[in-house]
Amino acid sequence: MLLKYFATAQIIRSFSSLRPEMDAANMIKLIKTCIPPLDGSHHKGQAGRIGVVGGSLEYTGAPYFAGISALKVGADLVHIFCSTPAANVIKSYSPELIVHPLLDTKNSINEISPWLERLHVIVIGPGLGRDAKILNVASELIKIIETKKIPLIIDADGLYLITENPELLKKFSSPVILTPNKIEFERLSNKLNGESGFSALGKNITILRKGATDELFSYCSELKWKNCTGGSGRRCGGQGDLLSGSIATFLHWNQANSDKLDIGIHTDKSLLASSLSCFAASTLIRSCNSKAFQEKGRSMLATDMIEHIHGAFKDLYGE
Amino acid sequence: MLLKYFATAQIIRSFSSLRPEMDAANMIKLIKTCIPPLDGSHHKGQAGRIGVVGGSLEYTGAPYFAGISALKVGADLVHIFCSTPAANVIKSYSPELIVHPLLDTKNSINEISPWLERLHVIVIGPGLGRDAKILNVASELIKIIETKKIPLIIDADGLYLITENPELLKKFSSPVILTPNKIEFERLSNKLNGESGFSALGKNITILRKGATDELFSYCSELKWKNCTGGSGRRCGGQGDLLSGSIATFLHWNQANSDKLDIGIHTDKSLLASSLSCFAASTLIRSCNSKAFQEKGRSMLATDMIEHIHGAFKDLYGE
Repeated sequence: MLLKYFATAQIIRSFSSLRPEMDAANMIKLIKTCIPPLDGSHHKGQAGRIGVVGGSLEYTGAPYFAGISALKVGADLVHIFCSTPAANVIKSYSPELIVHPLLDTKNSINEISPWLERLHVIVIGPGLGRDAKILNVASELIKIIETKKIPLIIDADGLYLITENPELLKKFSSPVILTPNKIEFERLSNKLNGESGFSALGKNITILRKGATDELFSYCSELKWKNCTGGSGRRCGGQGDLLSGSIATFLHWNQANSDKLDIGIHTDKSLLASSLSCFAASTLIRSCNSKAFQEKGRSMLATDMIEHIHGAFKDLYGE
Repeated sequence: MLLKYFATAQIIRSFSSLRPEMDAANMIKLIKTCIPPLDGSHHKGQAGRIGVVGGSLEYTGAPYFAGISALKVGADLVHIFCSTPAANVIKSYSPELIVHPLLDTKNSINEISPWLERLHVIVIGPGLGRDAKILNVASELIKIIETKKIPLIIDADGLYLITENPELLKKFSSPVILTPNKIEFERLSNKLNGESGFSALGKNITILRKGATDELFSYCSELKWKNCTGGSGRRCGGQGDLLSGSIATFLHWNQANSDKLDIGIHTDKSLLASSLSCFAASTLIRSCNSKAFQEKGRSMLATDMIEHIHGAFKDLYGE
């Protein structure tokens, strides 16, 4: 309880938003109202069926980190769609993941497409790689996701795709969250002639710039914030994947309960759900980083952070 | 000891049956009499040689969960019969499992068949998938299992097979247990024109409907019960596989000792053994869920439950 108090106090100190309705305490309150109760009233799948599109010859850890964090935050099922050479390795990391080696098959779009409509949120990018054929498949999947109106998160090499072709997101009516790091953010920003050009991406787009301070950009400027709670100086790989997977689960919960989300100012519910999901995941993963760093210091790796998802979640939101 | 007392008390409160002979305390007593003593009088294999038919390109976790739970409940050996692309991955989860990549080979029936007669109980379905050729192989295996009179448990995509072709079970003289979840139960029930149609499946069939309350249906109505002990609101994937694997081991023990099973009312011994096995596994896995949930909360996954099989077993049945 005391720990929880300090965690909240630290968040309030290290956080800033433009509007008092979007201060840290109020956001935590709103996020809490959307977390599905574990009272036995739900059946398998309702707490979240998350898709991850990524995993290539070189990159197998990234989609695992995204998938396992979605599950540990509280999703029920995760499906990973990867290239054939990545599949067995990703499966071997965890029997909890359902892994489809379909990104590089002849008929990949037709084979992946029927799975997508069962999913609540899809993450595109972790370990996707830069193979032109695979990027083309990812582009086609983004178009299908748009027509099926599935909430989408784009990270890593998925952001390369968007920077090359920003038109891809223009028609989305479901929420889209981009999670660039500093360099990915600069590339995107340059392509769009500065941050003011972000609105050209489409009005359902939310951008979470990751860094020493995480910063949220939204088409709806009232929903912006900056977060430098928790964290540490340790910048090992995989942390961005833990973030994108965590956003996915929160985004499902916040979207499913968006009617409950009211901050008293006129704002788009999907954009509000997106901003809250980014805040929930940013705060959670920064807390995992801080907790794991206290234990492992310079040796801390992404795997060490996974073990703290439960504790960090409990501190922030209770059981 | 105190813990054991509370566990038993909680079971008695959260359990209901039609007959006093089938109350929770009496069932636990009967199950205990069938658990093979670990006094050195048995040789390897006698405590259970269990088969699992399942494991496909996408699903590798499910057969692993079924197999490992059969072993952790106390079986000596587990053989998994899966599709070739699943085999190495399943093997990588645990060196304890014997894995045969035979479901998709040219001559699969002839290659699998000789292994079956060495097995005490077979589970068909975990991670089987919906490939028509594989489902056809599974159908043929069910026919062989029937002629060899091996006790059978059917779950997941195996239930799809039964719903498509309920005739498959009609001639069984050995016990058959179906373990549908809510949706699978509804599909089967619709196919058979309601629950009263279950008897058309064959008189050796027992159905365990999984859910917030587990409910047993038997051709012999005296053997019915409802169980809502333990558990939690967490509905992550893999829990059904832990259940089907656990039933398998208990079913072997209860069948092997069915002459000891006497509840004072006239009833078929195989159906009694089936009902008791479902109760034993339902109570055990619900207890594992509850214990793992206390530790891991919303982050709990099926893997976390496996670690509690020993503790839950000890609480219920002693060492």
